[in-house]
Amino acid sequence: MTDLTEKQISSQTVFTGKILTICNDKVRLPNGHEATREVVRHPGAVAVVPVTAAGDVILVRQYRYPVAQKLLEVPAGKLDKGERPDACARRELEEETGYRAGRLEHLATYYSAPGFTDEIMHLYLARDLVPTAQNPDDDEFVYIEQYTAAQIKELLAAKKIVDAKTLIGLLMAGY
Amino acid sequence: MTDLTEKQISSQTVFTGKILTICNDKVRLPNGHEATREVVRHPGAVAVVPVTAAGDVILVRQYRYPVAQKLLEVPAGKLDKGERPDACARRELEEETGYRAGRLEHLATYYSAPGFTDEIMHLYLARDLVPTAQNPDDDEFVYIEQYTAAQIKELLAAKKIVDAKTLIGLLMAGY
Repeated sequence: MTDLTEKQISSQTVFTGKILTICNDKVRLPNGHEATREVVRHPGAVAVVPVTAAGDVILVRQYRYPVAQKLLEVPAGKLDKGERPDACARRELEEETGYRAGRLEHLATYYSAPGFTDEIMHLYLARDLVPTAQNPDDDEFVYIEQYTAAQIKELLAAKKIVDAKTLIGLLMAGY
Repeated sequence: MTDLTEKQISSQTVFTGKILTICNDKVRLPNGHEATREVVRHPGAVAVVPVTAAGDVILVRQYRYPVAQKLLEVPAGKLDKGERPDACARRELEEETGYRAGRLEHLATYYSAPGFTDEIMHLYLARDLVPTAQNPDDDEFVYIEQYTAAQIKELLAAKKIVDAKTLIGLLMAGY
């Protein structure tokens, strides 16, 4: 069987932002041809499905500039350099929703869009929620919305959840 | 309630590739502050969960340069300009796997990573598969792998599916 690996010939960093680094690389394909690969380097992220004792789910409504819409999502955030994913999940949950996770269970770790970015997402289920104080970043604007299990199922059935990590998290949490 | 919308102040295209366009924008936040938004503009994509009469699933193994791994995924591909998502799904399924879909059912349309990209993914379930001829793009290298329903459930339970669209597709197809 042919080795599927694409070998890097050259790599050019075409943009270095605060969050993203964009590379335009040349690779050697298995058939010897050259091709270009446009790659978005990302620090990685976490997302958390916070579920109350009654089975309600805490979601956040926030404006997403790239798609120009206010989306309903599970709490999430980017990994700080060197930060452990589970610590990041606890931090982001508390910052965004004002709840601390008594129990945190790992659901999945996956690539968001491996065709063009290395973003890795670590997804958790949070239970035994303890209210603390919502403490979002200064420049983060988020509304907290609480939904019953039945409402979550309705949102899914009506295809109103349009964010990948939220879909995966809710489905894996059994909704 | 505060309007969450972030208003564009300026937009700078910092890279125009064959597939991706990268913008570095300035926005006005709801509190009046300025912030930057690094945005990856993408043409959109489709993915298909091909299920046989016996409940087997056809997956593709392919090298993903951004993550330097051979991933197991549902067949997928980018939308051509002006192409209808369902037509694209049928085309990509046949090109990558050599099966034509007798029935195509829409499962979900969602954003892969709306924090930094506008990539939209249209996800379908394909049934009544009719073998034709695998006809991948010249520079596309893909192995076809067929899994029983039990094997798919094992792969999911062992967290061996690490691609977002594949997770969503298999979960929504009931695996």
